[in-house]
Amino acid sequence: MLHLASHTGPDWDRWALRHLDDLLLDHAHCEKKAASTAINLIFRYPEHVELMEPLSRLAREELEHFELVIAHLRRRNTPFVRQQPSAYAGRLMEACRRAEPSRVVDTLLCCSLIEARSCERMQRLQGALAELDHEGDPRSDPALTELYASLLASEARHHATYVDLARTLGVVDEAGLRARLHELAMHEAEIVAEAPFTPRLHSGPV
Amino acid sequence: MLHLASHTGPDWDRWALRHLDDLLLDHAHCEKKAASTAINLIFRYPEHVELMEPLSRLAREELEHFELVIAHLRRRNTPFVRQQPSAYAGRLMEACRRAEPSRVVDTLLCCSLIEARSCERMQRLQGALAELDHEGDPRSDPALTELYASLLASEARHHATYVDLARTLGVVDEAGLRARLHELAMHEAEIVAEAPFTPRLHSGPV
Repeated sequence: MLHLASHTGPDWDRWALRHLDDLLLDHAHCEKKAASTAINLIFRYPEHVELMEPLSRLAREELEHFELVIAHLRRRNTPFVRQQPSAYAGRLMEACRRAEPSRVVDTLLCCSLIEARSCERMQRLQGALAELDHEGDPRSDPALTELYASLLASEARHHATYVDLARTLGVVDEAGLRARLHELAMHEAEIVAEAPFTPRLHSGPV
Repeated sequence: MLHLASHTGPDWDRWALRHLDDLLLDHAHCEKKAASTAINLIFRYPEHVELMEPLSRLAREELEHFELVIAHLRRRNTPFVRQQPSAYAGRLMEACRRAEPSRVVDTLLCCSLIEARSCERMQRLQGALAELDHEGDPRSDPALTELYASLLASEARHHATYVDLARTLGVVDEAGLRARLHELAMHEAEIVAEAPFTPRLHSGPV
């Protein structure tokens, strides 16, 4: 359903739990970046008026999540600090064709894959957190488990929204769209496999 | 209450009504720009963690207004098209001191003045639209009058929010803050007086 071409191994979960606050910080930055990406697309493509309202709603939801994650950081006494941007999204976007309208289609599909990977990792994180709660582990934080459970639905929706937006442009037929999404998903799988092994939502394999 | 150093003359209203759709288009772009400005500040100043959530909420509200204005453009069959950015905000921001923390204080105060001028012009527009409705003028559009009435409260709040944010930084005392706001308001009044006479929310005098 998430159209990803690779799946994160089970070791990621245990490792993620050891770097929970780093991941939470990265998560806050990712939500902020996602909002900014949606707004940049609004600025870049006013001609595609059908993109304006959905992208604006998306940006609003990412900002709402940003606020939620910031509040959990504060609750956990984890400072919100500046972070070196990860190379993941930039490397993924390098695959976008340069000429329009291919560029806008590819950009929207890459955005959908970024959302899909975030969603996959959040699902893993949520599952691992729920286990901690269940085991009564000292690191258990039911409020955080609940945060991820509540975010998952909208994160999965964002992935689908970007694919739908690429579809509504009407510049590529359904078969072409699916083929291109698959190509880009293969590219995304390579990039995430090569990503450095640092506590990021889009980190490399453990 | 809006801290502006000049007031728009009464001729502006009648002229605005003759360019209603151009102003509505400009308004959509202004809301988009306001959201992007708030997000840029989030990116620029993560160290000022107390700014993060208020700026994010502000950006969300601007995006909500963007969506509302776009919907009214569509209802009036006015196409949403790309627009040459106006020089107003850029010229205003030139007055910001370069060194921190003066720069962040000035930037927030300039943002507050942009919101104040938008609010002043929207008040005028709302009054003029209400008169059209009252007179049964053929240009009357009660839904648009209502839009502006509903936006005014939050626009006035945005102006105050930016001043409050400058205040919470705690880098300048109340007297210093008010003096600087007055200086920048004088600068804003000059810029808006020199602005070209085009159908923009921040246009020059009629």
